[in-house]
Amino acid sequence: MRISELSDRTGVTVATLKYYLRESLLHPGTPVSATRSEYDESHLDRVRLVRALIDVGHLSIDRVREVVQALDHPPASRHELLGSVHLVLRTENETGRPVDERVTRLAWRIEPRSVAAAQVSSALERAARESFDLSDETFATYASAALAIAERDVSDELGDLGAADALRYAVLGTVLTDPILVGLRRLAQEHVSAVKFGGLAEAAD
Amino acid sequence: MRISELSDRTGVTVATLKYYLRESLLHPGTPVSATRSEYDESHLDRVRLVRALIDVGHLSIDRVREVVQALDHPPASRHELLGSVHLVLRTENETGRPVDERVTRLAWRIEPRSVAAAQVSSALERAARESFDLSDETFATYASAALAIAERDVSDELGDLGAADALRYAVLGTVLTDPILVGLRRLAQEHVSAVKFGGLAEAAD
Repeated sequence: MRISELSDRTGVTVATLKYYLRESLLHPGTPVSATRSEYDESHLDRVRLVRALIDVGHLSIDRVREVVQALDHPPASRHELLGSVHLVLRTENETGRPVDERVTRLAWRIEPRSVAAAQVSSALERAARESFDLSDETFATYASAALAIAERDVSDELGDLGAADALRYAVLGTVLTDPILVGLRRLAQEHVSAVKFGGLAEAAD
Repeated sequence: MRISELSDRTGVTVATLKYYLRESLLHPGTPVSATRSEYDESHLDRVRLVRALIDVGHLSIDRVREVVQALDHPPASRHELLGSVHLVLRTENETGRPVDERVTRLAWRIEPRSVAAAQVSSALERAARESFDLSDETFATYASAALAIAERDVSDELGDLGAADALRYAVLGTVLTDPILVGLRRLAQEHVSAVKFGGLAEAAD
């Protein structure tokens, strides 16, 4: 398809698509003349991924480029692949931080330089600094809820996908479903609060 | 205390504190001379809250002002209070959206104009648009994990706090612990992936 059709099908303007091409977020099309290139389904997928990373994941252009480079050179093992996802989805100051003792006590199988472990440790420290230290019981509740979610996320089928597809699935899945989880927690708070402190007598219809 | 001590104890520069005062994010101190005001523990608490909302919650100055105004005029009922929290912590385009059928099927006690319900619906729709539609089983897993978390979040003690304290607790709790939950999910993914697809043989030490 021409760049104008790629624009129509993704809802991204031609000017923005050209910007993605210049910034290496989108791989070049196949040249068919001096002024025209042809794009295919792989470009459609890539543009949608880039939009999701920017709009939902709030990633910078540089970080999106890292994701895209990881997609083009995926690690061989399924497990390393997840480490790449967490690395590209990290926020600043989340690497190389000492791991919180509560994280260590979980005794999960975590790499010593795990980005996710640094992220949790950083968030725990920040909360404690605001006099909002999590009790051991609350941390245990959060960890077991997270484990139930992860058992569902890391499906066995992931092992059957090609490396690039598995990586794309894991990145998109994490970026797109974090807001669902955060929202569901607030929704559940509303429900529990209505039950405990009163509120609507009937379920919403 | 003088503004310089407030600055030392919060790590926020005097210039920024003056900006917070001008923008009504921080309530005025008690004037003790033409050029000096006295600040107290309530100012310490407020500055820490404002920092957390900006740094961790990524709220705009206008949104922080809404939170602060809600704190100064808290609703009487504990349940309405949670609605106020969700309202000030909403992201754009999350109000007035039709509620997703999967949310309705939860049969939780949710207000018809619930901000949290709109947030979940919007996130589900966005994921579906990227061909990442959640299966009913995955949604059910996420919802029951969220419920376990919320049962812990909305503690009975919340009913015993004064309205302003309860609101402050709920706002800070949500802003500071969302990143812990999001991080724990990734950490749990790493663990499950190591168990399923191989990786470290031993727990991290």
